[in-house]
Amino acid sequence: MKPIAVVLAGSGRADGSEIHESVSVLVHLSRHGVAYQCFAPDQPQADVIDHATGKPMQESRNCLAEAARISRGDIRDIRSLHAADFAAVIFPGGYGAAKNLCSFAKDGAACTVQPHVARVLKEFRAASKPIGLICIAPVLAAAVFGREMRQACSITLGADAGNDAAAAAKTMGAVHVAKPVTEALVDAANRIVTTPAYMCDATPFEVFTGIGRLVDEVVRLAT
Amino acid sequence: MKPIAVVLAGSGRADGSEIHESVSVLVHLSRHGVAYQCFAPDQPQADVIDHATGKPMQESRNCLAEAARISRGDIRDIRSLHAADFAAVIFPGGYGAAKNLCSFAKDGAACTVQPHVARVLKEFRAASKPIGLICIAPVLAAAVFGREMRQACSITLGADAGNDAAAAAKTMGAVHVAKPVTEALVDAANRIVTTPAYMCDATPFEVFTGIGRLVDEVVRLAT
Repeated sequence: MKPIAVVLAGSGRADGSEIHESVSVLVHLSRHGVAYQCFAPDQPQADVIDHATGKPMQESRNCLAEAARISRGDIRDIRSLHAADFAAVIFPGGYGAAKNLCSFAKDGAACTVQPHVARVLKEFRAASKPIGLICIAPVLAAAVFGREMRQACSITLGADAGNDAAAAAKTMGAVHVAKPVTEALVDAANRIVTTPAYMCDATPFEVFTGIGRLVDEVVRLAT
Repeated sequence: MKPIAVVLAGSGRADGSEIHESVSVLVHLSRHGVAYQCFAPDQPQADVIDHATGKPMQESRNCLAEAARISRGDIRDIRSLHAADFAAVIFPGGYGAAKNLCSFAKDGAACTVQPHVARVLKEFRAASKPIGLICIAPVLAAAVFGREMRQACSITLGADAGNDAAAAAKTMGAVHVAKPVTEALVDAANRIVTTPAYMCDATPFEVFTGIGRLVDEVVRLAT
């Protein structure tokens, strides 16, 4: 099997990729003996947040250089990510997915998607290769497939009631399905797998378990 | 059982706490249903490394603020960590443990240990509460117990042959025992548990597995 691509967006829940979710993806891929390659946009983060205080910091950080903290140095620019070279692609969550990979955190259902993120999603879908999306990252599928391409996809962002992200995903044309943190939703027709992770109030082990289910399904669909 | 303390030193293998190791600790503690509290020194990191290039960056970052990326915001100053409040303490590895918690990366067997790190280790040992140390972090036990207190402790830093860190630990008065990445070493007399993690050339899943063994032993000794 070809390796699986993992798209990161910095390192840290408030301004980058959620760290527990990202590491869970890498642990489960290596549990399956599947090779992986991390990617990130080589661009400044939308912001830098002091994670101890929750307040913005007056500095600039690069998505790719910070994401390399999670990947232990081995990382490539998302410009060089092409579906032909990989069996599947997985996007962990964290605010970075909603700030650096698209503008969902600021613009909701009217968000723009980073051009190479949109290209990558369309390429994998056109090649019928599985796409895994975690936590808030499923809004990328809603924006690209639901809104831009008018192709409904089924995703989970956790609970349905009282979930603003789920409401926005529905506005963009996605079907939202409630799922608990330890489960993954498979949209078999579109080969899209999602799990809510820290969209739920959950422990690291619950998040790890749900992402294990997602990776199991992505690997199964890719085989 | 009281919660278990986890001492971090930034976020990222080259200048802080190794991220896969730190997350593995939190996942396994929550697998056991054990509460945890993260701590870090509220001090500048020794350096900041661009993890994509491996080169130093001309900026300053705070150990505690960066470690809060791993702990998802909930973190306390190590000054407030006292053995009376916790069932055990665990130190993940990464160069941060050898740069920010002591000066081992620069000074080897002649290293100095951050004063509160040394105090915490002595407090937990005096209370016969278990101490878990991962990757390069066991050099902290060698420095504090072996060298300062002249009390031999058994630790692993991975392979024995051709391992400069193991040689330095022996110089400081520790007994070094070779262990593979998926195993943990228990020094029952001193209630010290160690696992080599990324001291070995290993996959994330192997590191996760070895840290699972370490957490199992720490929880068992603490119960």
